[in-house]
Amino acid sequence: MPAPETTATTSPDPAPAHVSVIGLGMMGSALAAALLKAGHQVTVWNRNPAKTGILTAQGAFPAQSPAAAIEAGELTILCLTTYDDVTGLLTPIAASLKGRVLANLTNGTPAQARELAAWTAEQGAAYLDGGIMAVPQMIATPAGYILYSGDERAYEAHRPTLAALGGTRWTGTDPGYAALYDLALLTGMYGMVMGVTQAYAMIRSENIPATDFAPLLADWVTAMTQGAVPGIAAALDSGDHLTDVSSLAVNQAAIGGFLDAFAAQGVSPAFFEPLRDLLDRSVAEGHSADGFSRLVELLGK
Amino acid sequence: MPAPETTATTSPDPAPAHVSVIGLGMMGSALAAALLKAGHQVTVWNRNPAKTGILTAQGAFPAQSPAAAIEAGELTILCLTTYDDVTGLLTPIAASLKGRVLANLTNGTPAQARELAAWTAEQGAAYLDGGIMAVPQMIATPAGYILYSGDERAYEAHRPTLAALGGTRWTGTDPGYAALYDLALLTGMYGMVMGVTQAYAMIRSENIPATDFAPLLADWVTAMTQGAVPGIAAALDSGDHLTDVSSLAVNQAAIGGFLDAFAAQGVSPAFFEPLRDLLDRSVAEGHSADGFSRLVELLGK
Repeated sequence: MPAPETTATTSPDPAPAHVSVIGLGMMGSALAAALLKAGHQVTVWNRNPAKTGILTAQGAFPAQSPAAAIEAGELTILCLTTYDDVTGLLTPIAASLKGRVLANLTNGTPAQARELAAWTAEQGAAYLDGGIMAVPQMIATPAGYILYSGDERAYEAHRPTLAALGGTRWTGTDPGYAALYDLALLTGMYGMVMGVTQAYAMIRSENIPATDFAPLLADWVTAMTQGAVPGIAAALDSGDHLTDVSSLAVNQAAIGGFLDAFAAQGVSPAFFEPLRDLLDRSVAEGHSADGFSRLVELLGK
Repeated sequence: MPAPETTATTSPDPAPAHVSVIGLGMMGSALAAALLKAGHQVTVWNRNPAKTGILTAQGAFPAQSPAAAIEAGELTILCLTTYDDVTGLLTPIAASLKGRVLANLTNGTPAQARELAAWTAEQGAAYLDGGIMAVPQMIATPAGYILYSGDERAYEAHRPTLAALGGTRWTGTDPGYAALYDLALLTGMYGMVMGVTQAYAMIRSENIPATDFAPLLADWVTAMTQGAVPGIAAALDSGDHLTDVSSLAVNQAAIGGFLDAFAAQGVSPAFFEPLRDLLDRSVAEGHSADGFSRLVELLGK
């Protein structure tokens, strides 16, 4: 698979398109507003019609039904809470999908994306799956982007329109890839959040202001991320897990002291007990001289 | 407490000093080598004398005993495996400490640093505690630095010499602060490592090359770190945990799907179960509208 491709946040002068947006929660509303702002014709539908008001005031057309919305747009963006909501909405109106293009930006798993892609293909629709790497406030700003996978022809045809929502990154024709990348990136963020919140809990156990510590923490985690992320990838792809920098044995010897220090400062050690357990296992299984890349293998076994 | 102060990695033309280094593991050897390279007179001692050879070949003087090393140096750097090793080494030679300056860079906890500082003060020695934010390969490079705390006069007097080891950052006169900052920064790194290894495990569950995903992962975790770290600090110091970006309720609703997706891809969910539990608790205790900063408070309760 080629590396994901990045495009600029906005294309110059995209031709106005007719786009429908189904699902007007905070995210769906931000998507519809960004499309309107970029000069597109936008039709909207939401289960609770009260949420359409703010968008119709900005020039959106309210559709009378999901089927009417899908029929109105060259492209229909779905942004619901769950995949069950998507299938619940589409199943009764399957007949209206033939020849349409759907871009489903609802959060889900690779398996859910693949199942829905297969079903929409049976109805004669083109299917794009998307993973939004942004909170609603980041839509249409350089800070956010959307991962896409699935029907590449539909992606290429509608990319100028989709660029109104922020950067676009193509991950592959497997419709599950956008969801997989999305999950993996957010997983990386959740780990960072555990580390950072635990670090602040330690600092605040001694009543040191968090803002005094913040610049050191941001710079340190950034430097470690920039070093570790490519290093682990190279080890994984080469299969050579040996390290001369920070071995699993060294970290296994250290982590017990960390858990003790958390407890001594009155901070819960719970976030880091699974890491201690996996480091213990890695050494017990003979991987003492390997680096963190070996943990990736062990997580999958 | 003022924000930690940063100095350049090397000061211009520091006067040659006489420094002793006790403990010649990988890190202690790197420290001694950096001091030699900067033109200082270096005396070394190690329990196993075989490790002194490579340094004496570079010009270091081998001491016959720890007491002789401490008597030889204006400043003695200790870099042993544990604080127990340090106290085991110093206790029998307490009489030789009067008027000396010790910089203990051995890994430990704030409580251990404070206890040792109090004991060395009783012996009439000046005590600096240090936390090395570097692997041995990063000593004396711009990539690493050392946190110091304790006797500020000793720090100011020897900072030009200590600068040979890399950047110096003063954290405060409380001798436990360097260890506390060190532990907290490494904790942040361990969280990042959990997130990144789990992310790669997800990507590799579909046989996608890790190096294809690495640039997206590094950029995403960096962007989230740069946003979250100061944001959480500001919320902690102000006591206002409400967020309009990513509430605990939204994350609590999402995390179950992540654990299911890990399992569906054959990846252990163990690293993230404690985060799910704390998110569940945060919502149960009425913090739904707060951001991640609230987790810091909950970790300390």
